[in-house]
Amino acid sequence: MTTTVIIGGVAGGMSTATRLRRNDEQMEIIVLESSGYVSFANCGLPYFIGGEITERSNLLLQTPQSLKARFNLDVRTNTTATEINRAAKTVAVTSPEGNYEIAYDYLVLSPGARPLTPPIPGIDKALTLRTVEDTDRIVAAISHTTVERAVIIGGGFIGLELAENLAKRSISVTVVEQAPHIMAPLDAEMAAIVTKHLEENGITILANTQVTAIEDGYVVAGDQHLPADTVIAALGVEPATDLARTAGIELNERGGIVVDARQQTSDPAIFALGDAAQKTDAISGEGTMVPLAQTANRHGRLVADIITGRATNAQPVLGTAIIGLFGLAIATTGWNERRARSAGKNVRVIHTHPVNHAGYYPGATGLNLKLIVDADDDSILGAQAIGYDGVDKRIDVIATAMRAHVKAADLADLELAYAPQFGSAKDPINMLGFIDDNALAGEKTFQWHELQSALDEGWTLVDVRTPQEYDRGNIPGAINIPVDELRQRLTELKDKKVLVHCQVGLRGHVACTLLSNNAIECANLDGGYTTWKFGQTTRV
Amino acid sequence: MTTTVIIGGVAGGMSTATRLRRNDEQMEIIVLESSGYVSFANCGLPYFIGGEITERSNLLLQTPQSLKARFNLDVRTNTTATEINRAAKTVAVTSPEGNYEIAYDYLVLSPGARPLTPPIPGIDKALTLRTVEDTDRIVAAISHTTVERAVIIGGGFIGLELAENLAKRSISVTVVEQAPHIMAPLDAEMAAIVTKHLEENGITILANTQVTAIEDGYVVAGDQHLPADTVIAALGVEPATDLARTAGIELNERGGIVVDARQQTSDPAIFALGDAAQKTDAISGEGTMVPLAQTANRHGRLVADIITGRATNAQPVLGTAIIGLFGLAIATTGWNERRARSAGKNVRVIHTHPVNHAGYYPGATGLNLKLIVDADDDSILGAQAIGYDGVDKRIDVIATAMRAHVKAADLADLELAYAPQFGSAKDPINMLGFIDDNALAGEKTFQWHELQSALDEGWTLVDVRTPQEYDRGNIPGAINIPVDELRQRLTELKDKKVLVHCQVGLRGHVACTLLSNNAIECANLDGGYTTWKFGQTTRV
Repeated sequence: MTTTVIIGGVAGGMSTATRLRRNDEQMEIIVLESSGYVSFANCGLPYFIGGEITERSNLLLQTPQSLKARFNLDVRTNTTATEINRAAKTVAVTSPEGNYEIAYDYLVLSPGARPLTPPIPGIDKALTLRTVEDTDRIVAAISHTTVERAVIIGGGFIGLELAENLAKRSISVTVVEQAPHIMAPLDAEMAAIVTKHLEENGITILANTQVTAIEDGYVVAGDQHLPADTVIAALGVEPATDLARTAGIELNERGGIVVDARQQTSDPAIFALGDAAQKTDAISGEGTMVPLAQTANRHGRLVADIITGRATNAQPVLGTAIIGLFGLAIATTGWNERRARSAGKNVRVIHTHPVNHAGYYPGATGLNLKLIVDADDDSILGAQAIGYDGVDKRIDVIATAMRAHVKAADLADLELAYAPQFGSAKDPINMLGFIDDNALAGEKTFQWHELQSALDEGWTLVDVRTPQEYDRGNIPGAINIPVDELRQRLTELKDKKVLVHCQVGLRGHVACTLLSNNAIECANLDGGYTTWKFGQTTRV
Repeated sequence: MTTTVIIGGVAGGMSTATRLRRNDEQMEIIVLESSGYVSFANCGLPYFIGGEITERSNLLLQTPQSLKARFNLDVRTNTTATEINRAAKTVAVTSPEGNYEIAYDYLVLSPGARPLTPPIPGIDKALTLRTVEDTDRIVAAISHTTVERAVIIGGGFIGLELAENLAKRSISVTVVEQAPHIMAPLDAEMAAIVTKHLEENGITILANTQVTAIEDGYVVAGDQHLPADTVIAALGVEPATDLARTAGIELNERGGIVVDARQQTSDPAIFALGDAAQKTDAISGEGTMVPLAQTANRHGRLVADIITGRATNAQPVLGTAIIGLFGLAIATTGWNERRARSAGKNVRVIHTHPVNHAGYYPGATGLNLKLIVDADDDSILGAQAIGYDGVDKRIDVIATAMRAHVKAADLADLELAYAPQFGSAKDPINMLGFIDDNALAGEKTFQWHELQSALDEGWTLVDVRTPQEYDRGNIPGAINIPVDELRQRLTELKDKKVLVHCQVGLRGHVACTLLSNNAIECANLDGGYTTWKFGQTTRV
């Protein structure tokens, strides 16, 4: 009889185990989980802390007993693999029942990742969030009525989800982020939208700030002493691969387990997946680390299929992700502009600020979209979306288009479901395609961060919004000629290079075509005043 | 100077006009609109009738004046083209200013469609909905306090949107549909979900029922006399192509204007688009009529690009559409099962009944998905989705996948944005891919409408749900063996062909793999008890 031992009983490991059983009724399948729980809802943990999920039992999707009954799995919690003997094909474990060894034919490593705890003095005073046990500790810590102020170190997904959830427990929260802005997957001007929203909801954000010490009752951050009844470190994760390293399995420079497209490690009897394993980046084709539940689950099924003899391969990953913060949804897929530029891509960027559905239908809310395109071949490199409704839909459509290598201009031809409650006859996705198509046809745009150098190069900045809009706020140096007057006032712009802008870019496009067709050199400020304004609040 | 005359000033025509101006500042662009309004929100009209949209002015997105100011367009409302003289390249018009002729270099036909009014005695008493004027007439008709009962003839998109909106005005509504079920784009068992929901919201649905006469105060439908203070005919549309026909332009058998991929008619100086023009079906490659706003808008931009000299082609259409009814969203793309089977396709159908986001996060609501696959090459032929939230997203993702020729099994590899408020780590879309992949690997399923013939062929029906679920309702003839007991009770099924089912198909799949791996021939009832149950209420 074949025995497969799986180390790690959450997303990836348990997907492997249950699929293995569906593929093979006879195989012995042993799952080792070092925590006390398997198949728990790890993405739900912050929401139990905040009280959105009220029943702790709702986090526990399966138990060893339920998995035995349905899938005849041998699931051992509180059981930690301590050593892999690759020659003997055995795993040594410690458990409440003592220490022992298990022989395997196949070994699957799905140990996940662990929170980073950099060597800050007092870091041991900080809580972290990864497991159900971690959750219990945080809930216990904040349940004292004396807990009024929390400092969260790290403004990534987990840190910000915790910020929201602690705030819902009436705790005053400060998030300290060492990078120039929170949410590394976003570019600076998009992250600015999130920072503003968090601040409006009472969260204090300290970006560009280093925590240097954690003391009893306060955190030293930059030159500030931040009072803190609770400190949580949410600085990201590192793959939990000590076991693999000791066993001599090949790791990458970030400590991730190197695997091929079949998720096979440098030892052909050992497979790896989930947060501990290297993925292949969909854009560069290079190795990357993407600690996301969706990929872990997908690869679990895949590893089981491969072990039971199906010829199949893992697909490269885009790293599509989403977070909800005080009603705002923020989603990304693929690369951001920063990464694309540092990789030397010839980058074309499109910002739009549409509404989620037809504006004439009640309840329309704003969207902020950013598309990053490789100008050399019009392929889509990435996208970012922020708004209240319809954010997940737009990113999912773009992620699907990217997976299928749809060109940016061909977003214009996607046929998306339209009724006025759900979208627009020209959906924001179609509009991205139209704008990209205009760029392909030669329309020039400048980015918000290129404005100053454009002015230095002698471009004349013309605000084509109404005087009312102009008076409410404008870009220094802009002259105001409303688009509807432009045709009559062309002589004012004769022989000038004209950089137009409007509120979001649409009237700017109309103005630019008008000027170009009248032989006046023109460019449009991408995303208009709105993108520019967000850019001004960046702390880069 | 080049002159382009555009007949029709709503979605397609006005998209053509504004894009023409952006491409060419010098061209004379004349738009002829027979109604009193251009660029009105045609998809919003039912919601103004119902009061969801409160301001009539919100329906009027542009006026001839605003279009003159921004785009230098010559827009003439209440102006009807009466004849095309192709040899002279002139259009004769009637207008408040009298009758006259306009010379054109290019003519663009975007006249739209008109409501079908079959020769039912009294049909002239029925109102129809297409224009702002129609809307005003309906609002006037139902504003009498004596209007308590309405009959709507036709259970398509417009008919059902009107049903909801009249109900919101406290009018008792009966919808009469001659076909076996409402919403022709859906298959019967999916339409049954919508019928149930409408009935729960107080709408009376009479399917399979012919209206034979409309009398003062009542409608004769089948053998019933339905009291009616207002009657609305919403039987679909036909292309408004009398003008094109008279001019000798080639039409298809449904009266649609035949165009090539450049939207060019049989007369190279004349282009056509929108509801009046033929489209190319994305699946068959054949001509089709798809009267949807999204395509009209898209083709308007395209026609302008072609007239102004860009080499570009229209893409085939899927016919993606969505409707909201009393909070329920219903969306479709591509072909339904009925059409696929009648086209002779080797059809594989997948039904699922998941929730819109992680079940452990509060507020999850049900989805009903149907995927129609060509079993010969695993291409996706179509999809249907019904639910409260996340319906548009799933159909948009599938429509994007179809546009890019993503295979059904590869839906498993789409990387969709996951957080527990927004989706599932294994999104319903991924699950469709997994199920399709299982079918490719040889798992046999039966459809709800194949159950009887399967039983006749000697399959033993086993309900693998819990006894509690079984007691709440079961399929006649099913024996109950819960999936978690199946491994111990295999001897009961020895030498039988076992057709298992659960609530939605998932435990059925687990049971089927268990049985197959124990050498018992097995099939799973697709969509489980839920799909079967919906199928029972169909009126076919």
